[in-house]
Amino acid sequence: MSSNIGRYIKMQIFGESHGKAIGVVIDGIPHGIKLDMDAIAVQMARRAPGNDKTSTPRKEADIPEIISGVLNGVTTGAPLCAMIVNSNTRSGDYSNLVDTPRPSHADYPANIRFNGYNDLSGSGHFSGRLTAPMVFAGAVCRQILKEKGITVGGHIYSIGEVKDTPFDMVNVDENMLEWLNCRAFSVIDEKSEKEMRDVIENARMDCDSVGGVCEVAVTGIDAGNGDVMFGSVESRISEALFGVPAVKGVEFGAGFDISKMRGSEANDCYYIKDGKIATKSNNNGGILGGLTNGMPIIVRAALKPTPSISKEQKTLNTKTLSDDTLIINGRHDPCVVGRALPVIESMVCFILCDILKGNGKI
Amino acid sequence: MSSNIGRYIKMQIFGESHGKAIGVVIDGIPHGIKLDMDAIAVQMARRAPGNDKTSTPRKEADIPEIISGVLNGVTTGAPLCAMIVNSNTRSGDYSNLVDTPRPSHADYPANIRFNGYNDLSGSGHFSGRLTAPMVFAGAVCRQILKEKGITVGGHIYSIGEVKDTPFDMVNVDENMLEWLNCRAFSVIDEKSEKEMRDVIENARMDCDSVGGVCEVAVTGIDAGNGDVMFGSVESRISEALFGVPAVKGVEFGAGFDISKMRGSEANDCYYIKDGKIATKSNNNGGILGGLTNGMPIIVRAALKPTPSISKEQKTLNTKTLSDDTLIINGRHDPCVVGRALPVIESMVCFILCDILKGNGKI
Amino acid sequence: MSSNIGRYIKMQIFGESHGKAIGVVIDGIPHGIKLDMDAIAVQMARRAPGNDKTSTPRKEADIPEIISGVLNGVTTGAPLCAMIVNSNTRSGDYSNLVDTPRPSHADYPANIRFNGYNDLSGSGHFSGRLTAPMVFAGAVCRQILKEKGITVGGHIYSIGEVKDTPFDMVNVDENMLEWLNCRAFSVIDEKSEKEMRDVIENARMDCDSVGGVCEVAVTGIDAGNGDVMFGSVESRISEALFGVPAVKGVEFGAGFDISKMRGSEANDCYYIKDGKIATKSNNNGGILGGLTNGMPIIVRAALKPTPSISKEQKTLNTKTLSDDTLIINGRHDPCVVGRALPVIESMVCFILCDILKGNGKI
Amino acid sequence: MSSNIGRYIKMQIFGESHGKAIGVVIDGIPHGIKLDMDAIAVQMARRAPGNDKTSTPRKEADIPEIISGVLNGVTTGAPLCAMIVNSNTRSGDYSNLVDTPRPSHADYPANIRFNGYNDLSGSGHFSGRLTAPMVFAGAVCRQILKEKGITVGGHIYSIGEVKDTPFDMVNVDENMLEWLNCRAFSVIDEKSEKEMRDVIENARMDCDSVGGVCEVAVTGIDAGNGDVMFGSVESRISEALFGVPAVKGVEFGAGFDISKMRGSEANDCYYIKDGKIATKSNNNGGILGGLTNGMPIIVRAALKPTPSISKEQKTLNTKTLSDDTLIINGRHDPCVVGRALPVIESMVCFILCDILKGNGKI
Repeated sequence: MSSNIGRYIKMQIFGESHGKAIGVVIDGIPHGIKLDMDAIAVQMARRAPGNDKTSTPRKEADIPEIISGVLNGVTTGAPLCAMIVNSNTRSGDYSNLVDTPRPSHADYPANIRFNGYNDLSGSGHFSGRLTAPMVFAGAVCRQILKEKGITVGGHIYSIGEVKDTPFDMVNVDENMLEWLNCRAFSVIDEKSEKEMRDVIENARMDCDSVGGVCEVAVTGIDAGNGDVMFGSVESRISEALFGVPAVKGVEFGAGFDISKMRGSEANDCYYIKDGKIATKSNNNGGILGGLTNGMPIIVRAALKPTPSISKEQKTLNTKTLSDDTLIINGRHDPCVVGRALPVIESMVCFILCDILKGNGKI
Repeated sequence: MSSNIGRYIKMQIFGESHGKAIGVVIDGIPHGIKLDMDAIAVQMARRAPGNDKTSTPRKEADIPEIISGVLNGVTTGAPLCAMIVNSNTRSGDYSNLVDTPRPSHADYPANIRFNGYNDLSGSGHFSGRLTAPMVFAGAVCRQILKEKGITVGGHIYSIGEVKDTPFDMVNVDENMLEWLNCRAFSVIDEKSEKEMRDVIENARMDCDSVGGVCEVAVTGIDAGNGDVMFGSVESRISEALFGVPAVKGVEFGAGFDISKMRGSEANDCYYIKDGKIATKSNNNGGILGGLTNGMPIIVRAALKPTPSISKEQKTLNTKTLSDDTLIINGRHDPCVVGRALPVIESMVCFILCDILKGNGKI
Repeated sequence: MSSNIGRYIKMQIFGESHGKAIGVVIDGIPHGIKLDMDAIAVQMARRAPGNDKTSTPRKEADIPEIISGVLNGVTTGAPLCAMIVNSNTRSGDYSNLVDTPRPSHADYPANIRFNGYNDLSGSGHFSGRLTAPMVFAGAVCRQILKEKGITVGGHIYSIGEVKDTPFDMVNVDENMLEWLNCRAFSVIDEKSEKEMRDVIENARMDCDSVGGVCEVAVTGIDAGNGDVMFGSVESRISEALFGVPAVKGVEFGAGFDISKMRGSEANDCYYIKDGKIATKSNNNGGILGGLTNGMPIIVRAALKPTPSISKEQKTLNTKTLSDDTLIINGRHDPCVVGRALPVIESMVCFILCDILKGNGKI
Repeated sequence: MSSNIGRYIKMQIFGESHGKAIGVVIDGIPHGIKLDMDAIAVQMARRAPGNDKTSTPRKEADIPEIISGVLNGVTTGAPLCAMIVNSNTRSGDYSNLVDTPRPSHADYPANIRFNGYNDLSGSGHFSGRLTAPMVFAGAVCRQILKEKGITVGGHIYSIGEVKDTPFDMVNVDENMLEWLNCRAFSVIDEKSEKEMRDVIENARMDCDSVGGVCEVAVTGIDAGNGDVMFGSVESRISEALFGVPAVKGVEFGAGFDISKMRGSEANDCYYIKDGKIATKSNNNGGILGGLTNGMPIIVRAALKPTPSISKEQKTLNTKTLSDDTLIINGRHDPCVVGRALPVIESMVCFILCDILKGNGKI
């Protein structure tokens, strides 16, 4: 197991979907941070199901209770533990998930990895529900960054084939980031939002699901942060993002498209903008040689469509080794991209705090 | 700085492009591994410049000398150190790289990060030359994997807009991987290779450069390896790949394209193939819930075009803050994708060994 | 902060003495371990106050509630979180601890380290109460070791100047270890126990406190476990033991006394005992070159007397910088050695499990 | 293997006694440190054999060659690699060390741990020679500390039963530390030195060896450095010191003796000294709750007598399982304490730098 991350600040996730509680311990968070619980609640709500009609109608309160590390609303410097008690605890028989593992879920490899001892109900520790404590941790880190003048925000870059207006990688608007930051379904372009909602609704009607891409931008970060090689901002952020369920691709700046460019086109030339050193393009997504170069950090994460669909699917009975079919009951998100976005942003916030601490900046 | 990686086996890279030597220490490598130095030389040669006409004609011997950890050609279990002495040591004046930083190079952020103390000659520790010790380490790990029946191989998936035949993600041919593994410019399709070489040659003629994508496959790995969340096979591999210069995107399986699929299309259904549990498609690239599922691991890395081009470029004089132009002299690769491929493969080999060690398999 | 430890298994402690709860997350614990809750309760009781008349009469229930990582009483492989809710929560004014810091407590340096933001009530995160989750983690690890035939046990080696019969380092009796393991005040020699109790009682009567030494032995561990240099069994165990409040010294085998021996006396000569390779003496405490040699591991930890004494003490008013006096009210242990013993044993159990996991043995 | 240490700065040791070279890579060392190579040479010489008549007459040049991370004598921020080429390379047959393992050496457990693949000549990676790169790293760190006004120095506290004047733990004299720092056999009291030399000479005459204790003091370090629990200054230093061959005990301040004190005697009371907060005694060795309290850090390490003695010893033939005798030829130190002292100091220097970096102070 490796449900912890961070080099200078450590985030340890625990819990199972239908266990007693899920939570996080953050060790190494700076002392003296006054927690804005309302701002944390906003982020928790963005991730929580039922707050937008594209997502599952299951209701989750998801109110994190702070167990330690905070006194009178201010961080003490001791490990910060926050917990969300599960109202929906284990019940029923999930043994069929062993015999007929759900396609593209962790059921089958997890059964081998943990020799059948892992908790299957609600996907146990593999559940998307475990991203709630990540959002809590990210919301705390977001406040630390804000005090340093750093803003992290994102939008739904695409759902299926429908694209939102992408960020202007050179001139990301901080105010727009702040506006996006409070939304349940963060899309810049109204028309795109409508189309995306249609795509999702159509998938739902077909008992199917659909994937998408999240795009996150970071403004206000100085040049010269990060480390080289395996401590690169890209290494650090990607390690974190691939820890979020459903992520299958991560790219920075022009990303995969940069591979089609020529150097003369891809190179981000320096010039003076408003008295500061800047680059005219930002194909490198604000990162050169693993270090920030003062331009906005731009990162995209591709998410696969929810594997839990109510459509009948072919699978295998791993006991009898004979073909079988599977219908996944229960209410599932036809699209998790909207709810995954605050998780992606949160992990970016956490990693940036960790990097800044490693660089002696916080 | 963070030129080290690994949780159970640690790889520590050191050296500068024009310093005395570059090298690597691998701590935690299993004892009793008989090193096949010829196989190591093959991998070193694939990365070395001058061995294929698409790359720079600079000659680098790149013969790693083993300093420790090996006795009579067999690993002892002590830290394995290998070093490559630099024939091309510091000379000349590189101070212009501070004043007029090369676009899309680390010059500018590195100067801030290290307050001007970093070695600039040949890009110092940021040089692509530092990938040579990674290839050495990867070549050792490749042998360890081979003994476990695991094959890692890759090809140039694309150069600019030209694509090679992609891997059949479900039925990757191990023999083809082995064939690709020994080539200097690993392309499956002969016609694609010719076109790629043309694209590169054209870029060279234009004093320009071009990027591309590497695709790597891993066969023979059992289901149930890896860890959850931030210990996921994807987190681990991406952390390593983004430590390789020029990588701007990493994806697994269908990668970014999976975001356009519906669940019913993306889901990899189980069935029995040759008496073993397999999936009919492999859009997840052999990884579910962070764990291997027994299907081939498929990973792609997007590389930006070499930023060093001999075309005149606009830049800034960071001292006078006035516009300037820059012509980068010297012989540079118009395309590094072919030489980067064995580096990408090597980092995959290293991470897989680390994962297997963490799982108690080696 | 660094309330986490472990290389292959990670133990993360959280909580404050008078906060909502204290607890631990153990990430990487093997799956399939059936927890013996009664055995855990025995260890918790040994550490809990009020269970022996030498300790403070405060009552702490200290019943750990398992939050995650266990299903039907068996570990799942997911992070194991256990929590103890505090009945004794914050109240009163502790600001005097800033102005007149208690001698030999963390008050003064903690105030500087955390800029006054740290929780002072009941010593906050610095409280000895935080050792309760360590004992829980250790009790789980003790069971894992037991299944491998490894027994960890200890006794109060000395209180003040009174010594118990030391362990026979060569022939530690496993049955005696098991007997000691269940006691609240683990002393081998009855007469020594009486004398120790007298020393403690006298200290109490004088409103004073007294220190002591714990001695722990490990039997049943094979030769060849551990790692070299900074991965030595000694490095690993000492790192853990110095994380326990009040520990000021750690030694192995003959420890400090070995410095007075000659080589011919100190060297542990090999011979055959009961058909197995053994040594005639065990001055190295079962560890050579950082590795176990098959002999019992012997480790001793020196604990300082409780700094909280009800006697009037001189201190400083750090605000006015004038001399002051301090009387610490409340009920405090005149001697923590008995209650610290299961904590010391627990950390040894945890580190041994971590080492065995790193060696691929569990 | 685990020949690396450090959380914010990583020290990776490599090499074998009779291999091509031994060395160290230090990753994360601050940039801009001007190396004083003469000061480094002084420390290397203190550890080198043959520089004092108490040590072995073998001559080792031990001149570290800097391979990377330094430009024009100043650290660049890239990994700093330094190497010492071995003049004394493998020769002869060491297989007898497998069959008749030397008492109290790593031979027997190492043979099991590495399944016979480890390098035996000159003890391979287990050799005391591997402490030379530790001293190099420590000498660099000593300079970093010096710039911060922190002085680390030590003396031979005892050899056998002969004691030097111990440090005045409250008022350690910085000038004396500097004076001790340059000596080959660092003893404060002249008469003690003579007696110690006699004890060593007598052991040599008897073909035997003798152990001792090193005491190290750190002055000039502010209150509030370090971390709690397993990040305590004591945990960090002890982990490092037990990585030094022959160390069997580590204690801070009054150490094991504090266990015999009453609280009223052990407690270090605050008062004002020269306008600064200080304590009247220093039984805690400058560390409270894991954090520095502004008083000198005092640490002692007990070293066992060299196990290599030329006296005939009983051992076992592990092949035939029959009793055997062993005579260890070659020239060996009758006492390593004097040469170990700079190693102990060096590891303290390294850990303090690591702690300061983690605290954002360097």
